[in-house]
Amino acid sequence: MEDGERLDDLRIGGLKIFQNERQFCFSLDAVLLAHFATLRKEARIMDLGTGTGVIPLILTARGAQNIMALELNEQMVHLARKSIVYNALEEKISVCSGDLREINALFSAETFDLVISNPPYRPLNNGKVSALDGIAAARHEITANLLDVVRAAAYLLRTKARFAMVHLPERLAEIVHAMQSLHIEPKRLRFVQSTVGQKPKMVLIEGVKGAAPGLEVEAPLIIYRNLPGGRYSEEMLHYYEI
Amino acid sequence: MEDGERLDDLRIGGLKIFQNERQFCFSLDAVLLAHFATLRKEARIMDLGTGTGVIPLILTARGAQNIMALELNEQMVHLARKSIVYNALEEKISVCSGDLREINALFSAETFDLVISNPPYRPLNNGKVSALDGIAAARHEITANLLDVVRAAAYLLRTKARFAMVHLPERLAEIVHAMQSLHIEPKRLRFVQSTVGQKPKMVLIEGVKGAAPGLEVEAPLIIYRNLPGGRYSEEMLHYYEI
Repeated sequence: MEDGERLDDLRIGGLKIFQNERQFCFSLDAVLLAHFATLRKEARIMDLGTGTGVIPLILTARGAQNIMALELNEQMVHLARKSIVYNALEEKISVCSGDLREINALFSAETFDLVISNPPYRPLNNGKVSALDGIAAARHEITANLLDVVRAAAYLLRTKARFAMVHLPERLAEIVHAMQSLHIEPKRLRFVQSTVGQKPKMVLIEGVKGAAPGLEVEAPLIIYRNLPGGRYSEEMLHYYEI
Repeated sequence: MEDGERLDDLRIGGLKIFQNERQFCFSLDAVLLAHFATLRKEARIMDLGTGTGVIPLILTARGAQNIMALELNEQMVHLARKSIVYNALEEKISVCSGDLREINALFSAETFDLVISNPPYRPLNNGKVSALDGIAAARHEITANLLDVVRAAAYLLRTKARFAMVHLPERLAEIVHAMQSLHIEPKRLRFVQSTVGQKPKMVLIEGVKGAAPGLEVEAPLIIYRNLPGGRYSEEMLHYYEI
């Protein structure tokens, strides 16, 4: 193993994942998004900014057969490919090295059934930027911003195909605006709370290209039980049973 | 009292309210909105489509001094004025008879600090329309639609002034789109659930004219305790203590 590298147990579907402590390590956000997205097993899926490749890995545990994962950071491309080989998923997941801002040079338009993304959350003027380039680009909108991500998704999606994203609640209005301006109509919305009674930390959103308005706001996803010790809620425990 | 008319106890601030069973009677939505809106006591406030006048009445219990209430239905104008006189609030609340689609013929632009509205929720093609004209217009977008309401608010608001509305969660994407297209940036959002674990029934939203993006999504408002018998939650009980 290379310096800073480690092999973690995803505890989902028997999968293992390589991570590097000097790079961005996946968080619960990606796990929740991979479970939230509406999935048809035969769908052609794109993960924009895959990082460690955690979302494609979990999607295969949910039955996905055909996933393309795009990543700009060469070291993350290397790590994600290593995990795919380790889990013997080369026939289901491909990692493409490239920039989502140049999506039309990399892929044909309107050829995907599901586009998924756990993008950088924060504008450049918001919060401390990590001194490590890889972590900075995963957290802050350095290499791609919200509109770049939605624009790439809109380009890739067939009509009636879906785009699923996790993001910060404080950016919801911008997200809705960006999606609608690119004809991806928000259709499902779910907030994630640490416990009952708290304000949400994350928002999961799914849109359908070319759909009519009408949004299903689901019951909030509660991560921890309201008990001393903070064990996972029943719903969270189910996520680790596939 | 006239036919179908009754005098109800609001159980807030000692207020009474006239309602007519053949017209739209106020519901919990209006009570929640009146508590949700950010209120400065000296603010000049407009309630678009006031109906029974329930929102202005509750706002006075919260300290508001200067409220204009607009209503199209002449019978509701009559009822609302009767409640205002009964509660001796003529110096704080005025009811104007008129159509919010002709707002620029009624009021000067950019002269209000807070615009509030509990508008009709459903498009005309959605659900059974009441045979009673007054109830139909309060529930369905017959006399004004979402964009008409937001447009009237945008016209009335000073820069940095607030617009607060209650609506159906399924229409949230349209609401955000309408507000942003008229330069009212969504700044506060709160979903209302019957009990913990359920999907929301209503959404409370507040925007600020000319503000920068950035949305505070608050903890959901839970109406009933998760207990047999369904008593109000602690937060709801506080609403009836002013």
